[in-house]
Amino acid sequence: MSEKRTEISDIGEFGLIDKINTSTKVRNESTVLGIGDDAALIDLGHSYTAVSTDMLLEGVHFDLSYMPLQHLGYKAVAVNVSDIAAMNAVPTQVTVNIGISNRFSIEAVEVFYQGVHAACENFNVDLVGGDTSSSASGFVISVTAIGAIDKNKIAKRSGAGENDIICVTGDLGGAYLGLQVLEREKQVFLTNPEMQPQLEKYNYIVQRQLKPEARMDIIHELADLSVVPTSMIDISDGLGSELLHLSKASGLGVQIFEDKLPIDKQTYDTGHELGIDATTAALNGGEDYELLFTVSQDDYEKLKLHADIHFIGHMHKESNSSIMQTKGGNTVPVTAQGWNHYKNE
Amino acid sequence: MSEKRTEISDIGEFGLIDKINTSTKVRNESTVLGIGDDAALIDLGHSYTAVSTDMLLEGVHFDLSYMPLQHLGYKAVAVNVSDIAAMNAVPTQVTVNIGISNRFSIEAVEVFYQGVHAACENFNVDLVGGDTSSSASGFVISVTAIGAIDKNKIAKRSGAGENDIICVTGDLGGAYLGLQVLEREKQVFLTNPEMQPQLEKYNYIVQRQLKPEARMDIIHELADLSVVPTSMIDISDGLGSELLHLSKASGLGVQIFEDKLPIDKQTYDTGHELGIDATTAALNGGEDYELLFTVSQDDYEKLKLHADIHFIGHMHKESNSSIMQTKGGNTVPVTAQGWNHYKNE
Repeated sequence: MSEKRTEISDIGEFGLIDKINTSTKVRNESTVLGIGDDAALIDLGHSYTAVSTDMLLEGVHFDLSYMPLQHLGYKAVAVNVSDIAAMNAVPTQVTVNIGISNRFSIEAVEVFYQGVHAACENFNVDLVGGDTSSSASGFVISVTAIGAIDKNKIAKRSGAGENDIICVTGDLGGAYLGLQVLEREKQVFLTNPEMQPQLEKYNYIVQRQLKPEARMDIIHELADLSVVPTSMIDISDGLGSELLHLSKASGLGVQIFEDKLPIDKQTYDTGHELGIDATTAALNGGEDYELLFTVSQDDYEKLKLHADIHFIGHMHKESNSSIMQTKGGNTVPVTAQGWNHYKNE
Repeated sequence: MSEKRTEISDIGEFGLIDKINTSTKVRNESTVLGIGDDAALIDLGHSYTAVSTDMLLEGVHFDLSYMPLQHLGYKAVAVNVSDIAAMNAVPTQVTVNIGISNRFSIEAVEVFYQGVHAACENFNVDLVGGDTSSSASGFVISVTAIGAIDKNKIAKRSGAGENDIICVTGDLGGAYLGLQVLEREKQVFLTNPEMQPQLEKYNYIVQRQLKPEARMDIIHELADLSVVPTSMIDISDGLGSELLHLSKASGLGVQIFEDKLPIDKQTYDTGHELGIDATTAALNGGEDYELLFTVSQDDYEKLKLHADIHFIGHMHKESNSSIMQTKGGNTVPVTAQGWNHYKNE
């Protein structure tokens, strides 16, 4: 390999920050002052400011043996933008802190920031701050996203009403099955390093895991249609867990229908191949970063022809009863079996 | 030890977040929505929003063998509040992300958050978000602070004018020498675990290292005196490095006087004992989190009797010349020799 490798110690922290600064563009008028002072300055006028933050840790949230650094930078921004979207807000700024060990070169950090910048461009947000630290071990990322929202358009978790229709965007379960495929290929590689990964037929679900998108397109379309969701959350831990968050916050029960869950054919087929039920992947897999929201029945007409919004059930008044009607006609409770990183495995 | 120890896996991430939520109070009217939704909501009306973020990593920024977890929680908030103060802004909200390994119990995390809450109370800010993750190794903290500031009261790094007076608050070099004392006692302990640390005579400087304060008192006093600094920065990397930031951003040179540097007697005495020049500690030590700012000569009368603001020099027009006049009457260049975590040691 003759690729250039510059040690971070060669240019120091300030040199590294300079490199990041010079590759940063400003896109929002509200960004009064970006990187380079003690704090960024943001002018949001009369709206509310939404703030969301998330940490991603190597070995817990991502595995660099199959996660390209550029995708990692993209994903770190996208998952925070997704949280801002889930308030029905429009993201405007992000800050990115990273901790990196000596095993990463300047070039590796630059590739990571290429992903950060690509996400900033795609979601129209400004990178306005953050620092870089050395880490004793592993790659650590913490992102904070800031957004603006009209005071009368907020979608909290708590606003769902009785008989409101439960909607999800996109399709579910793919990111989880994509991760299973990547894990399997990694094990094959560890056993026989000459084997090349066979990922072509899993392209869609692998992409769902490695480069998730925040559904800002849906937020803008809802605004165009004058639909304000009565409640909303993004699907990071799995549909089941998120449904229970809406149920608890809104004080209502949930009824969904298994045959209404949007699941891609590649997700089904891969689930079948790996012996994982696609419905289980959709309910518990997580990391799809689709939006789960409720709308008043009055808004159904405006949304019914939208190709990427799916109606999976409704809210009901029995707050202790959150259930799914299966394809076989049975009724099963909705449960939160999302990730629990703290369990000893 | 019969202290209670609850494993984090016993209550899970949601249980841990619930524990943090229920111990969180809201102090600012601008906090419309705090922890518990996808994002916090903040209403800052007509002012600018200042945003600052910092990451603290175990083994790089702190050593848990002498850093009590409660102090760590306090410091993590204080250093971000200090960045907001350095814009002449008033902090209103913070988010706190932590990554923790299995070696920490629920009780340990609660003690950390006691420190977070104590800092929130002291600096009158609201904890509005953040997540907890497991970490493959070590304790990782990332804090983002948000503040508000009148548009005409901002103090950037870039506003200093020719002949403006250079001011620093408090005293310098103590946090660095406190760290040297803690490191020495750690080595003694590792050699002979029966030795108890002898820290009484170093109480002040050890406190400077372990529990630094953000100088919000100064920000409020400057407002009361109707003084808006022409430029400002907080001293995290050392006075020399921060002076050069002001110099570069403002396009002016700096002249300071060694005999004007505020240094506490305990800092002098400990420097003498350890063979470290106190002026060097003040210039390069860092982590004092005092404020360095410039004011117009017209404002000198308003500040001259302030017991905790010290006038150490002035800005001049030769932008390539930043110098210190020593006690011996010599002139030496001001340099940035702050921490470089990336150097292989």
